[in-house]
Amino acid sequence: MALINENYLKLQAGYLFPEIGRRVREYAQANPDKKIIRMGIGDVTRPLTPTIVKAFHQGVEEMAHLDSFKGYGPEQGYDFLREAIAENDYKARGVNIDADDIFISDGSKCDTGNIQEIFGHDNIIAVSDPVYPVYVDTTVMSGKTGTCATNGYFDGIVYMPCNEANGFLPELPKEKVDLIFLCSPNNPTGTVATKEVLQKWVDFALENKCIILYDAAYFAYITDPDLPQSIFEIEGAEKCALEFRSFSKTAGFTGTRCAFTVIPSALMAYDKEGNAHQVKKLWNRRHSTKFNGVSYPVQKAAAAIYTPEGKKEVTDTIAYYLENARIMRESLVTLGYTVFGGVNAPYVWVKTQGGLKSWEFFDKLLNEANVVGTPGSGFGPSGEGYFRFSAFAERENVLDAMERIKNLNW
Amino acid sequence: MALINENYLKLQAGYLFPEIGRRVREYAQANPDKKIIRMGIGDVTRPLTPTIVKAFHQGVEEMAHLDSFKGYGPEQGYDFLREAIAENDYKARGVNIDADDIFISDGSKCDTGNIQEIFGHDNIIAVSDPVYPVYVDTTVMSGKTGTCATNGYFDGIVYMPCNEANGFLPELPKEKVDLIFLCSPNNPTGTVATKEVLQKWVDFALENKCIILYDAAYFAYITDPDLPQSIFEIEGAEKCALEFRSFSKTAGFTGTRCAFTVIPSALMAYDKEGNAHQVKKLWNRRHSTKFNGVSYPVQKAAAAIYTPEGKKEVTDTIAYYLENARIMRESLVTLGYTVFGGVNAPYVWVKTQGGLKSWEFFDKLLNEANVVGTPGSGFGPSGEGYFRFSAFAERENVLDAMERIKNLNW
Repeated sequence: MALINENYLKLQAGYLFPEIGRRVREYAQANPDKKIIRMGIGDVTRPLTPTIVKAFHQGVEEMAHLDSFKGYGPEQGYDFLREAIAENDYKARGVNIDADDIFISDGSKCDTGNIQEIFGHDNIIAVSDPVYPVYVDTTVMSGKTGTCATNGYFDGIVYMPCNEANGFLPELPKEKVDLIFLCSPNNPTGTVATKEVLQKWVDFALENKCIILYDAAYFAYITDPDLPQSIFEIEGAEKCALEFRSFSKTAGFTGTRCAFTVIPSALMAYDKEGNAHQVKKLWNRRHSTKFNGVSYPVQKAAAAIYTPEGKKEVTDTIAYYLENARIMRESLVTLGYTVFGGVNAPYVWVKTQGGLKSWEFFDKLLNEANVVGTPGSGFGPSGEGYFRFSAFAERENVLDAMERIKNLNW
Repeated sequence: MALINENYLKLQAGYLFPEIGRRVREYAQANPDKKIIRMGIGDVTRPLTPTIVKAFHQGVEEMAHLDSFKGYGPEQGYDFLREAIAENDYKARGVNIDADDIFISDGSKCDTGNIQEIFGHDNIIAVSDPVYPVYVDTTVMSGKTGTCATNGYFDGIVYMPCNEANGFLPELPKEKVDLIFLCSPNNPTGTVATKEVLQKWVDFALENKCIILYDAAYFAYITDPDLPQSIFEIEGAEKCALEFRSFSKTAGFTGTRCAFTVIPSALMAYDKEGNAHQVKKLWNRRHSTKFNGVSYPVQKAAAAIYTPEGKKEVTDTIAYYLENARIMRESLVTLGYTVFGGVNAPYVWVKTQGGLKSWEFFDKLLNEANVVGTPGSGFGPSGEGYFRFSAFAERENVLDAMERIKNLNW
């Protein structure tokens, strides 16, 4: 008799974003004349830029001719892309990452979920609260937790609350933990960790033989030269961390799909006898067995991000979204909201007004202003009473949304 | 302390195809003047056809403009593609599959590996022997097996030997099994299951509440109208089977990446109390949590396969490869080889000559004829003494390879 993975039954309701999608769809169907402004899912709106599009077309054209056709590529990704990443994202910043440490994939969501497969069942996972829900849901699916308690916490996960008191930066756990998800610039709070903060985490991880699973999907929004864009800018990190990056928010690849994970050769995990094993080797085995590489034209398009023209275009797009964040931040402050994030980060994190709960604020905003954001409680219990606005939107919509929020009736 | 998934340590050497790649690379480096003919990995050689390329370019162009740009798509795939599949691959053959039963992915290798995540740890997996290695390796990685015995079998997996005596069709297992991988047209043996054979399996699965994981990646090579292209052409299959399909071998998408899994609403699996759960619902939760959809231009390209022009072009490509298979089959028979498969299938499965073991034959062929095939033993113990030739090659190379094999010194 075929048995299900019963851990799936522990999962709470729908995954956050499909639930938002459902409510928005229902509202739109009932109110077809309303113009809804979507700042919820954190999806980019700016088109792919000319240099990227040109390379994408060239990649497609290569597939059309016998002498340039590409079948199966290397599961780890083409060298031309891995080398461009190593050179531009790392070596240019003085960080010693080899092309061989880089694994191209079709998305950071996939990578942050799949990474747990190479680690043992007995690891204890630590996550910030609020947190990107995929870290928690995939931990539950993998069977490392008990059920969800009434406080919204899954038994077996170590939650690290982030709040106004600690500046939305998690404190070092007092309990035993083994794998620690960190995300900076943070989704959802928009907080950015300094070098000092990350050094503290790296020291903790080295001391306890933990591994930091560092989600740097939003690194490109860091314009302050004093802030680290990569965990590997921190001394010792190559022995205790791996890093997820994506072209989704950097270059508008949410619908094009390309990302990568960086695992230095020095990163080790252990078997129960205490023998060290290269994490990179395990991930390589998983990647080559359960994955078949990213579409060739997509990799060509991604590599174009690293050309001089591509870099300039992408920088302009990021500046556009950062200006959105600035406008949102300042408008909301003017309206009396308590606002966090939105600097060196594409997310603005606000306290709801009128003492509303996150989903109440969501519904009010959707129904009365036709603006979609993300309820903070969807990211975890400590997100209750907060709300995330995404700067990924067209400027006129940002201005319009701010005007509508100004006119909300309280 | 971060612990590894120790199941990875049970895996045998390298995954088959990287190992072939390694030997070929080494030979090529040592003999740069030799022209190697590759019929090993089973990778297509014909370029994408004009109708598909046109749609692919159009998809890219849409990404270049604000009003047609696509960000995150539905994780399950765009309706335009799911509907084209339901209509053309299923309804047109009298099979009642809804668009909603279809989950677009980036590859069947990924799907056949990932599917086990939604099933419980206590399921017993049955596989044919020889077998596509991904089924076994991902079962080992998931912790459902013991170690590999000296006979090459993993403890905990039920192997169903396929050999000349049973016509390379597995017999119904006598042991308890829960999840059964079947592949037709078969990789590696090229055997195609008739309706009667599949009906026997469906009846067995229904009686024992098993689920058949049906790999139909090569369905398009079935030209005989009496043979089933889908498990769902068999009565009762919608209650005991799911099906994997891919555009890799149908339309040359090995480097473009697009596939799908079909899970009918009626398919159930059980919790330990015996309650039934929709398999489709579980897969949908996995798919939307750990996957973020296939690249939009790729889905546009895939949908073009179902246009009248696309269908014609794809049919021509398949006919080209099938003609290769016919040539290989007949040439090898003439040379005195015992040959199987190669009819309604792109793989030709031969007994090695001279009593050589599979890898010995591989090395002889590589070194003396500069032809790359796949050693049968790489697919499992029952493959020892056999060899797989892939019909995915250019015609001149097929003819050349047959000539070289004719001239081998014995």
